[in-house]
Amino acid sequence: MRVFIAGFGTVGQGVAEVIASREEFFLKRYCKKIQIVGVMDSTTYVTDSEGLDPLGLVSVKKETGKVGKETYTDALKVLDSVEYDTLIEVSPTDYDTGGQGLKNIVHALECKKDVVTTNKGPLAIKFGELISLAKKNKCKLKFEGTVAGAMPIINLCHDNLIGENIHSIRGILNGTCNYILSKMDSGQPFDQALKEAQQLGYAETDPSGDVEGYDSACKVVILANSLFDRNVTLSDVSITGITGITEEAISLAKSRDMVIRLIGEVGEDVLEVAPRLVPKGHPLSVSGTLNAAQIQSDLAGPIAISGRGAGKTETASAVLSDLISVMDDRKE
Amino acid sequence: MRVFIAGFGTVGQGVAEVIASREEFFLKRYCKKIQIVGVMDSTTYVTDSEGLDPLGLVSVKKETGKVGKETYTDALKVLDSVEYDTLIEVSPTDYDTGGQGLKNIVHALECKKDVVTTNKGPLAIKFGELISLAKKNKCKLKFEGTVAGAMPIINLCHDNLIGENIHSIRGILNGTCNYILSKMDSGQPFDQALKEAQQLGYAETDPSGDVEGYDSACKVVILANSLFDRNVTLSDVSITGITGITEEAISLAKSRDMVIRLIGEVGEDVLEVAPRLVPKGHPLSVSGTLNAAQIQSDLAGPIAISGRGAGKTETASAVLSDLISVMDDRKE
Repeated sequence: MRVFIAGFGTVGQGVAEVIASREEFFLKRYCKKIQIVGVMDSTTYVTDSEGLDPLGLVSVKKETGKVGKETYTDALKVLDSVEYDTLIEVSPTDYDTGGQGLKNIVHALECKKDVVTTNKGPLAIKFGELISLAKKNKCKLKFEGTVAGAMPIINLCHDNLIGENIHSIRGILNGTCNYILSKMDSGQPFDQALKEAQQLGYAETDPSGDVEGYDSACKVVILANSLFDRNVTLSDVSITGITGITEEAISLAKSRDMVIRLIGEVGEDVLEVAPRLVPKGHPLSVSGTLNAAQIQSDLAGPIAISGRGAGKTETASAVLSDLISVMDDRKE
Repeated sequence: MRVFIAGFGTVGQGVAEVIASREEFFLKRYCKKIQIVGVMDSTTYVTDSEGLDPLGLVSVKKETGKVGKETYTDALKVLDSVEYDTLIEVSPTDYDTGGQGLKNIVHALECKKDVVTTNKGPLAIKFGELISLAKKNKCKLKFEGTVAGAMPIINLCHDNLIGENIHSIRGILNGTCNYILSKMDSGQPFDQALKEAQQLGYAETDPSGDVEGYDSACKVVILANSLFDRNVTLSDVSITGITGITEEAISLAKSRDMVIRLIGEVGEDVLEVAPRLVPKGHPLSVSGTLNAAQIQSDLAGPIAISGRGAGKTETASAVLSDLISVMDDRKE
């Protein structure tokens, strides 16, 4: 299978490394390799219809800051310049317009290519349109990596729990907020916990996307649309972040053997991100940068899952899971 | 697809109810129904090549204590008396010899039937032989329900994490022990917590299979053989139960912000069931009758899952997941 990687930052490089590390796996399972026939970062690109060396690409990017020698102005023309089967769209996300990532995904689907993406913006903004386009052109659009990184949630529900009627999903969908709240559990005030998260690289200089709850809300939108057949956008989500949580509130929770966690919830009549009280020992009481989700379904009851919501290799592992699913379908 | 249900206790009845409740789902996904063409309990049976009414079977069993009017002495002859595609083997488990369940599974596989089972004994005792037999006869042998009830673990690893190199699995694999330990967390002595578990129906009159760790060890064996390509049996597992855990040990753990949980572990050189200290907030610090497992893999890192390890509908939900997998494969 020939892939084109659009975006060659942390995740893109992680994907290249994972493709290299799984060469034997792919050969064994499909009797063929995954060939990277094209890669572009924000300004440069490189293509080779015979396949590029994945680790070579990572080295060049690290040494020169660019993945290719050729520069471009029209990303879609670059995509059209080489034959590929699947677009791996991992360029930086844009929550307002969907940005270049949205254009890349639409173009690939219009050209009847399968798409695997970790790009939240396009999915949160144009979910219905993208799914319809994929269906119309009989393409796969896979996006496990858009929600909770390495933690399987979309594929878990689609594969293992497909016979269940899922009533609701409640989850910790932002590791930065969970890190801050965990630190507050042990007595740190919000500002200090945030500062520490920034020093450790968990939170950005402008942390508002995380701490105001918007990042979690994007994931709530993707879960609602993909698992509950809804057609909602960010403006449909009731959003409260964690900036208003006081040390007193944390102490009060603690005295009741509970913790406060930022929970995103999708239910039949609920679409919300808000701090909630969670009993210690509950599957959603996890600490640190973990993500977690509890799926409530009619037969299985509550099933909870947790895992790393971010990180180069972790996010690439979600892309790998989607790539395998695309290749399994092609094998049939 | 025509199924034969061997065993019509709690789980068998749950399976019949779930098959009835998912009629529309199967029609939509496969354009056909699941037909129950035969059922047997420990002494009686009923067959109908045109299909039996699932809820009718449950009613008859509840009213009369038996599922059929015909009695039998040779279960294999009963299996041979009607054409079916998949055996659902949910008869009572026998950890010593595999019992009738083992004979039923072997017979069905020899007759080239697919098998879905929740029966731990046969899998814990004869895993290698059963898998070889299934492979030889190109049959499916699915057993999600043997480990941790509704909590997906085997299918999760086989479907979603198939590209990962799994280093280890550590899990709470027995809800009865977890209930007792959770009660001890809040100050109850072992004997009282056990008594309460018995009163609530979580623990049996002879609780040794649970509290001595043998039930957990069976699941460790199944995980090791199915997910780590091992060929081990119960005698290979180092087993320590929870009967020796004192109130002092629990208090000491609590003072360090930890809990004690009975953990089954499968790793490259580890095959063990033993009480372990788990930090509060860790995904394996869950309370109550929940089961939980943490999968450590090379790309995704730690992924944890929890869910109900027992219960009629919950265990039937694992059977449903396996049935769907069998039907998906037949569709290809």
